[in-house]
Amino acid sequence: MKIRYLHTMLRVKDLDKTMDFFRLLGLEETRRIDNEKGRFSLVFMAPPEQPECPVELTWNWDGDEGLPSDSRHFGHLAYRVGNIYDMCQKLHDAGVTINRPPRDGHMAFVRSPDNVSIELLQEGDSLPAQEPWSSMENTGTW
Amino acid sequence: MKIRYLHTMLRVKDLDKTMDFFRLLGLEETRRIDNEKGRFSLVFMAPPEQPECPVELTWNWDGDEGLPSDSRHFGHLAYRVGNIYDMCQKLHDAGVTINRPPRDGHMAFVRSPDNVSIELLQEGDSLPAQEPWSSMENTGTW
Repeated sequence: MKIRYLHTMLRVKDLDKTMDFFRLLGLEETRRIDNEKGRFSLVFMAPPEQPECPVELTWNWDGDEGLPSDSRHFGHLAYRVGNIYDMCQKLHDAGVTINRPPRDGHMAFVRSPDNVSIELLQEGDSLPAQEPWSSMENTGTW
Repeated sequence: MKIRYLHTMLRVKDLDKTMDFFRLLGLEETRRIDNEKGRFSLVFMAPPEQPECPVELTWNWDGDEGLPSDSRHFGHLAYRVGNIYDMCQKLHDAGVTINRPPRDGHMAFVRSPDNVSIELLQEGDSLPAQEPWSSMENTGTW
């Protein structure tokens, strides 16, 4: 039986904040549905070269009190990046906590505005160790 | 800056049960890491024609009490299937509850053994209504 992956869906409390966050990572909006009657929006965002691998953001206009403050069961979304130091600097400059800094030039973890864990992995070989990352401590969990 | 989607990661309590579930959907193991020292396994499973869109299953051998019993915040994983009735029948026969039956010949929801929500969508046009699905009530939430 044929099966194809479509998307990973995340419920979000603040759509604009979350879209800003995924834009920082480099994702682009590929599709958007605003449903007046159901009072919800669905926004699909994907890496520019992978429109077939979107995250679907579900936003209920009147709030979503059922959402837990953490999302450990979910695990994470993972993205490969061209330069992990540049990406972490960009996120840091925008006020995002680098929970697991890329001390090894290879891997970092951050959280979305809804505390969804996001893994970042360096493309190809690890980069040479570089401050301030190589001596930066972890913050919280991810 | 270049960014590429890598995987969606899920923490699981029973790896075998979860792998059986994703095999029922038609996913295949593409990569497996058993880490004796860290006492965990990572198993990547993807649709046969989309090895680049895997779900990563993380299993801690000594259990993972931090996992909530539900995972609403996560949203869901979505897969497109060739025949949604055949897929739901296969899942049902294997003891999986069809939480949202495909009454419309188009969409169904089930849960993984860890209660992770899985959306199934019919490829192409909706199928004509068909029993027992067209009159089947919802079960629980998804």
